[in-house]
Amino acid sequence: MWAPFVKHSSIEQIMNDKGLAKVGDNLVNLCYSLAKTLVLGYTTGEKVRDSVLARAIRGTSVYQHMNRRSDIGKAADAYEAIVAYLWMTDKITISAMADSLAGLLEIDSKTSREKEGMLAAISFQRFLEQNIAHLPQ
Amino acid sequence: MWAPFVKHSSIEQIMNDKGLAKVGDNLVNLCYSLAKTLVLGYTTGEKVRDSVLARAIRGTSVYQHMNRRSDIGKAADAYEAIVAYLWMTDKITISAMADSLAGLLEIDSKTSREKEGMLAAISFQRFLEQNIAHLPQ
Repeated sequence: MWAPFVKHSSIEQIMNDKGLAKVGDNLVNLCYSLAKTLVLGYTTGEKVRDSVLARAIRGTSVYQHMNRRSDIGKAADAYEAIVAYLWMTDKITISAMADSLAGLLEIDSKTSREKEGMLAAISFQRFLEQNIAHLPQ
Repeated sequence: MWAPFVKHSSIEQIMNDKGLAKVGDNLVNLCYSLAKTLVLGYTTGEKVRDSVLARAIRGTSVYQHMNRRSDIGKAADAYEAIVAYLWMTDKITISAMADSLAGLLEIDSKTSREKEGMLAAISFQRFLEQNIAHLPQ
């Protein structure tokens, strides 16, 4: 159903697609909210900060496809666009992404915002690493 | 996978669940972004305003379960919580919700924000009407 919108032939095309980043922004927030729901044991929600996604993508080999001078906003957009690409091409499901993120998210209701951000960045980094093979080479 | 988080036995319980509303906020934004993507023919994203969801829920029979003095924020939260309930209990899928919303969303890239909001409210209202039977009675 969504494949017609993602005819990208390179990682660079995906990472620079602002429309994909907009869809991905919603996907990232939903999956992170569901991951927190799994970890904390009650439904909750969260907007993921750009700094978290920027840290996550900078830790992966995908980052070599970006201009080194990219700011935090552009790095986060690139992460979000990749997530949208993966979901729209049926490479990932929302529940599986939430489950993957939850795996490394060792937080509880008392965890500081800073510590949670650090753990979230590691979770998002590992998730991307596990899915790099699904991106066009 | 998500059913353990939605053990609600009444519509009122669902509509007043703030955690469900947080998950639903992300679901609503994602589905609306995907609906716009379908209608406009390119990937795009949008945050749905509370006023749109409040108008949508006020047009349905579900609204009788709310306090009449509820403000726009509470009405929107109730709509979002219902969407989260429907998705987490496997009554709806994200793609089907996007497709349903797109059906009445007669917009193009020149449609005013006001007109789009009016059409979006009608789309969200009809979507809820079609799914009322899935809610606990």
